[in-house]
Amino acid sequence: MKKPEKPAKDAKRELETMGNNIVGDIKKGENPSFVATTRTRSNIVYDQKEGYLRLGKAEEERSFLNVAQSKKFMQTMAIAAKCHKFLTEGLHTTIRGLFYQLKFSLGEDVDESLFEEQSESNPLIEDLEVSLGVKREDLNLNANRKGVLAGSMKVVDTFGNEKVNIDCSKMGRSGWQIPSDVDNDIEFVDVKAKYVLVVEKDALWQRLNEDQFWKKENCILLTPQGQASRGTRRIIRKLADKGIPIYVFTDSDAWGWYIYWTIKTGSINLAYIGGDVATPEARFIGVTMSDLDKYTFLNKLTIAASEVDVKRAQEMLNYEWIKKHKEWVTELERMIKSKKKLEQDALQGPRLTFVGEYIKDKVKNNEVLP
Amino acid sequence: MKKPEKPAKDAKRELETMGNNIVGDIKKGENPSFVATTRTRSNIVYDQKEGYLRLGKAEEERSFLNVAQSKKFMQTMAIAAKCHKFLTEGLHTTIRGLFYQLKFSLGEDVDESLFEEQSESNPLIEDLEVSLGVKREDLNLNANRKGVLAGSMKVVDTFGNEKVNIDCSKMGRSGWQIPSDVDNDIEFVDVKAKYVLVVEKDALWQRLNEDQFWKKENCILLTPQGQASRGTRRIIRKLADKGIPIYVFTDSDAWGWYIYWTIKTGSINLAYIGGDVATPEARFIGVTMSDLDKYTFLNKLTIAASEVDVKRAQEMLNYEWIKKHKEWVTELERMIKSKKKLEQDALQGPRLTFVGEYIKDKVKNNEVLP
Repeated sequence: MKKPEKPAKDAKRELETMGNNIVGDIKKGENPSFVATTRTRSNIVYDQKEGYLRLGKAEEERSFLNVAQSKKFMQTMAIAAKCHKFLTEGLHTTIRGLFYQLKFSLGEDVDESLFEEQSESNPLIEDLEVSLGVKREDLNLNANRKGVLAGSMKVVDTFGNEKVNIDCSKMGRSGWQIPSDVDNDIEFVDVKAKYVLVVEKDALWQRLNEDQFWKKENCILLTPQGQASRGTRRIIRKLADKGIPIYVFTDSDAWGWYIYWTIKTGSINLAYIGGDVATPEARFIGVTMSDLDKYTFLNKLTIAASEVDVKRAQEMLNYEWIKKHKEWVTELERMIKSKKKLEQDALQGPRLTFVGEYIKDKVKNNEVLP
Repeated sequence: MKKPEKPAKDAKRELETMGNNIVGDIKKGENPSFVATTRTRSNIVYDQKEGYLRLGKAEEERSFLNVAQSKKFMQTMAIAAKCHKFLTEGLHTTIRGLFYQLKFSLGEDVDESLFEEQSESNPLIEDLEVSLGVKREDLNLNANRKGVLAGSMKVVDTFGNEKVNIDCSKMGRSGWQIPSDVDNDIEFVDVKAKYVLVVEKDALWQRLNEDQFWKKENCILLTPQGQASRGTRRIIRKLADKGIPIYVFTDSDAWGWYIYWTIKTGSINLAYIGGDVATPEARFIGVTMSDLDKYTFLNKLTIAASEVDVKRAQEMLNYEWIKKHKEWVTELERMIKSKKKLEQDALQGPRLTFVGEYIKDKVKNNEVLP
C-alpha cells in the first residue's frame, strides 16, 4: 500500500527554534534546557503493531545549570551552532569532520579544546537528532555510504548549483552508487518497478545485472554490499513508501538473516530513527533451507554452518516473533539439525544464469518468508 | 611520460592453445604438462629498477603423471574448461561462483566432488593466470569492487548488447563506481586531467566532490574507499599510462602509508600481476607530519598514534628504499618520537573547504614525497 510521504522537517529552522528557546530561557533568567528522548536499552521497544524497533516515551531534560550536564549542554550547543553553519553554507561533512571542527573551535592559541575525543561528540549529535526530530543527514552530516542499484528509475540530484539527471537504467556494469543522503536535494522520478530485489552480495548483484535481470523482470536491483548503510536502508524505505514490494535475497546463515532483519525491523543503534530506516513490509525470498527440497542439486552445494550460525539460529528460536512464524522455525531448526548452511552463490552451480531463474520462480509463486 | 598500452592477450585463445598443447602431449604419448611461474615468497622480488613487486624467474612444471600433482592438474584443467565456457557464453562470475560450479561439476547423482573447499580452487586459478599471462578478470572472473571517481572523462562500457556512455563529470554526489574489470569491453575516452588525486577516505572524497574540486582543478578525483581493490589499482595504472601524474592523499599513519605503498609498489599477494597493478610513478601528497610546521593549527588536531602505527614506522625505517629517501625517514622518525599521528579529516578543522586549498597548494608547489 502506498503511504503518503512524511513532509520533511526544515532542520535549519528547527535549530533556530531551539536556539531561540534557549536564548529566551536565559533572558527570562531561567535555566536553559531542552528535551531529548532517552536512547538507553530500557527505552528501546519493538513496536508489535508497526513491526520495527523504536524509542519509547521516556525523555530526559538536558539543562545548563546542572553540574553533571553543564559541559555536555555547552558542547551540544557548539554542535548545533556548527550544524547551523554547515546548513547556511550549504556544505557537508561527516561526524569525524565535525569533531575536528569542534576540537579546533577555541582556536589554535587556546590550549584547551571543547572536545578531546569523538566519543564525546557522537552521543550529543544523536541527542540533537532526537530532540529536533531530524536525521543527521538533515544536518549536513554524511554517513558512510555503501550500496548500488540499477533499474528503471531516474535520479534528479540537485548538487551544488547543478541539477544532475541520472538514469539508473543506463549505468552499465557499475550501477548507481547510493549516496549518504537520499532525502535532501534529491528526487527519484519515473520509478517503474514491479518489485525491488535487495541482494546481499555485490557479486550476485553483478551476476544479475549482467543478465539484465532488472530489465527483463521490470524490477529495481539493489545491493547493500553486505549490511545496509543508513542511506541504503532509507532508500529501501522510500521505495516501499511508493507501494513497491521489497524482496530480500541473502545467504541462509546468521549474517544473511541479520541483514534481512535489520532492513525489516531496524536496529538497536538506529532505533532512534526507527520509522525512517525500517521496512517491515520486506519479505525474505531466499535462499532458504527449504530450497533443498525443491532444488535438490543444492544438497551437493551446502557448506558447514559455523558455531556462530548455529548459536544465532538457537537464539532466534526464542524470539516471540519467530515463534509466531512457523516458516522461520522450520528454517532455523533445519540448520541447527543439519549443521549445514546455504549461500546465494551456490545457485550458480548448474549454470550462471540459474540465479535469475530462481528469483523469477519465487516471485511468480510468491514463495517468500515473512 | 606516456607509455604505450600493452596489447591485451586474448584469454580465450590462450586457453585454447593450452588445451591443444595438452591434447598434443597426450596424443604423442607424452606426460601432459604446463609451466607456471613460482609464486612462493622466495620468488617474489622487489624490482629496484621498475619500483614494484613482481615474480622472479623460478618456474614449476605441473604435470599429470606425477602422484603429487595429478589431482591438481586435473582440477586446473576443470577450471580452464569452466573459464573457457564463461568466455564463450560472455558471462561473468566470481571465484566463489566458479568454486560452486566446480563443486557441482560431476552432477548431483555422483557423491564425490571435484572440489570440496574454495581454498583448493583459488591457487589453481592463480596458476592459470601466470601460466597464460592473463588476469582473472580476463577469464571473466570478477573480483571485489570498491572505489569511486569523478572528473572530466567518459566511460564507454560495452555491456552485453549495449554500449553505455557514462560521463564522469555528470555523476552528482555519487560518482562513478569503479568496476571489477577496467580492461575488457570498456574504454576511457576524453580523459582531460592535469592529475589524478587518490583520496583514502570516501568521506574526504565526498567533501572535495561537493566543492567541485575536480572541476576547478581539472583533475580526476578518485577514492579507493580504503585499501584499493584490484580494479581500482588497475585504473590508477591505466591513468598513469596516459601520462597523468598520480597523487595519493591518505592519513599520516600505518594504514595510510600501507594504502600508498600498495598503490605504488603493488603487494605480495598480487606480485604475480605486479606490473599491471602497481604505479611506481605515484607520489604522496599528504597528510605528512611535516605539515605541522607549515600549517601550525594542525598541532591542535593530532591524535595519539597507536602501537601498530609506531611499530610499523619502526619497521619501515629498516627498508632499503626508505633509507635512501630522507623525506620519509624524517616523517617516520617524527611520528615515533612524538607518538602522534594526523588524519586527513583534520584538515577540515578551520573550515570545511580547507581540504581543497591544502591540496591545491601542495600540487602548485610540488610538495610531494617520493
